[in-house]
Amino acid sequence: MSREMVLEKINQAVQVLNEKGIDMWITFVREMGIIPDPMKDFIIGTNCTWQSAFIITRTGDTYAIVGSLEVPNMKVVGTYKNVIGYLKSIKENLIEVIDKHNPEKIAINFSRNSALSDGLTYGMYLELTNHLKSTDYIEKLVSSEEIIAALRGRKSPMEISLLREAVSETIKIFEEVGRFMRPGLTEKQVAAYMQNVTKQKGFGLSWEREYCPSVFTGPDTAGAHSGPTDREIRNGHVLNIDFGIKFRGYCSDLQRTWYILREKEDVPPEQVVRGFNVIKEAIQLAAKELKPGKLGWEIDDIARQYIVRSGYEEYPHALGHQIGRVAHDGGGALLAPKWERYGNLPFIPIEEGQVFTLEPRLTIKDYGIATIEEEVIVTKDGCEFISPLQTEIFLIKSE
Amino acid sequence: MSREMVLEKINQAVQVLNEKGIDMWITFVREMGIIPDPMKDFIIGTNCTWQSAFIITRTGDTYAIVGSLEVPNMKVVGTYKNVIGYLKSIKENLIEVIDKHNPEKIAINFSRNSALSDGLTYGMYLELTNHLKSTDYIEKLVSSEEIIAALRGRKSPMEISLLREAVSETIKIFEEVGRFMRPGLTEKQVAAYMQNVTKQKGFGLSWEREYCPSVFTGPDTAGAHSGPTDREIRNGHVLNIDFGIKFRGYCSDLQRTWYILREKEDVPPEQVVRGFNVIKEAIQLAAKELKPGKLGWEIDDIARQYIVRSGYEEYPHALGHQIGRVAHDGGGALLAPKWERYGNLPFIPIEEGQVFTLEPRLTIKDYGIATIEEEVIVTKDGCEFISPLQTEIFLIKSE
Repeated sequence: MSREMVLEKINQAVQVLNEKGIDMWITFVREMGIIPDPMKDFIIGTNCTWQSAFIITRTGDTYAIVGSLEVPNMKVVGTYKNVIGYLKSIKENLIEVIDKHNPEKIAINFSRNSALSDGLTYGMYLELTNHLKSTDYIEKLVSSEEIIAALRGRKSPMEISLLREAVSETIKIFEEVGRFMRPGLTEKQVAAYMQNVTKQKGFGLSWEREYCPSVFTGPDTAGAHSGPTDREIRNGHVLNIDFGIKFRGYCSDLQRTWYILREKEDVPPEQVVRGFNVIKEAIQLAAKELKPGKLGWEIDDIARQYIVRSGYEEYPHALGHQIGRVAHDGGGALLAPKWERYGNLPFIPIEEGQVFTLEPRLTIKDYGIATIEEEVIVTKDGCEFISPLQTEIFLIKSE
Repeated sequence: MSREMVLEKINQAVQVLNEKGIDMWITFVREMGIIPDPMKDFIIGTNCTWQSAFIITRTGDTYAIVGSLEVPNMKVVGTYKNVIGYLKSIKENLIEVIDKHNPEKIAINFSRNSALSDGLTYGMYLELTNHLKSTDYIEKLVSSEEIIAALRGRKSPMEISLLREAVSETIKIFEEVGRFMRPGLTEKQVAAYMQNVTKQKGFGLSWEREYCPSVFTGPDTAGAHSGPTDREIRNGHVLNIDFGIKFRGYCSDLQRTWYILREKEDVPPEQVVRGFNVIKEAIQLAAKELKPGKLGWEIDDIARQYIVRSGYEEYPHALGHQIGRVAHDGGGALLAPKWERYGNLPFIPIEEGQVFTLEPRLTIKDYGIATIEEEVIVTKDGCEFISPLQTEIFLIKSE
């Protein structure tokens, strides 16, 4: 992000601190080249080597306390108003800055629920509480997860337009691979083709290149979050692809499904069409109820129940996640069932300006997996699709 | 790293567990695309999304407990013998695996001293101890820092040969930029030239591209860990560059110093030569004492005292750090003074097979900064330079 975008996010953070009644937010880090806090690009905009504290207060003051050698760099980067260098230990400067603001609530980056709000390592937590042990600030520490969820979730107009462009470029790549696809190609060949096209266009991948794209063809495939294999595309396969690009720092995440016609087939078998349509309808039913104030599990449940009532197994994952600078973004509301592995995220109210994926899945016996993944932005009283919808299963003609 | 290299490191880990009397090592992670444990490439070799536990025991058993959707991927990656999937919560499978081995000491990745051993976030620590709260395993948790320091510090012959090649390719780039350098160019132009050459050769950078290389020309420069500026190279400047490449996953980190001759000068002024020589001698004096069993602060002190006795200010950083897959590698011994910001690292005995930088610094008044950074490997009873030494200050002739 540019300095301007970081400063915009810091300003937004000051507003959120006031809204949430939190006096001070400390991002406490070291060696970010080795283990970066997930908020680094948002509210810092550079790296640091030694223990460093990036402090934002509800009064709008900002302090970067860094190793003395990194003071000049921090001044050049220019994202913090006060840059303080230390030589031997950060402790005294840190306490001095906190003292000046006498906060009642101090947010730090830990969260049982969201990795995005959990940049503080346990060793650094021990260091921080050791620095503060002669004060009563330890009892005032709270999780920054609400602040981070607001900052990452509520997209600015600039962010929304980048997310839209990321989607639209992704759709073009799906169209290209649709023309390339034919029986005899392997999942790996299809994936390599898409990665090449993406590279030629100068885009990044939305997640790890091992499974971006994921390509699954036919029955008994490896399943979501697996890489493409040497399995060959054959007539009579349902094939689906999960793919996203990184466009100027912003990610897309979409899925599309194809059917490879058999000789003499003009249309897919009835059970393939039915499976595809159940997914399509599940997305529409969920989107109809998606609006500010709803809880994620309620939206997930609509799609999940519809699929189960239609006679399919429920999908073993969440209906959808927020998306932004990373594919699994947000750190707040998640459209997930009430399973322990999702922590409290399914219970956090949905807010305006959040962008979600909707990505149910079902297995069509003997054919493969049907999925569609669309993206929506939450509006004042509903949601709006930002991806052009897949309304029919794409067909590959046998030659 | 390839699967073979990960398996080699896991085998080495089993030996280290036995050596240190630790029964089990758990790397507990989630969303490694957002916040990867620094040991990910070494002992896992892939990513994960949901809470996952990668377990190595002193008996040589290995378990990956991952979200069910990621079981196929984990099996393809093939770095863990037992792959266990869970749907709703990792808790039961985790306790079951620990129970089977009934460990007395369980290492987890937290460290107040080293970021490399501090991959467990505070939120994930709370999750882990919550999963284990009905057991007595919480009292058996210890830091994995000794294991990680051994794994990262003790270089295999393959690793040493890659580190040597990284150094030798870096020296070639220093030679090229020496031919390119002339008065009137800015620090930024010199840095851009080096980054282009590096890219053309297909290498990565050893650290963040903002200050890899760092280029400092003349008096009153920004100082270490700052990016290059628009400052122009002028006659009479001392100029130094801090630079490293990433060669097949392994890093280099070297510094070299030049003097820009004035018109009619054939040799640098006496005080420039003297400053350069003090740095050169400080490195030799420190290297002479560097051997297994010594403590990092003792080696730092030799160079530091020599520079101060010679009439210069002491350098505001450590004499040297370990290097490997990252520029600041190791997580064990560090050649640093006994300052709080370095934690216990200056007090950890040096071991055979570790690779260190030696990089003292001093200011030559009115001219600039003199630095040399060399790399050494610790042998059975001493150390050996793996970089060809800079023995004289490089000269740029005025045209």
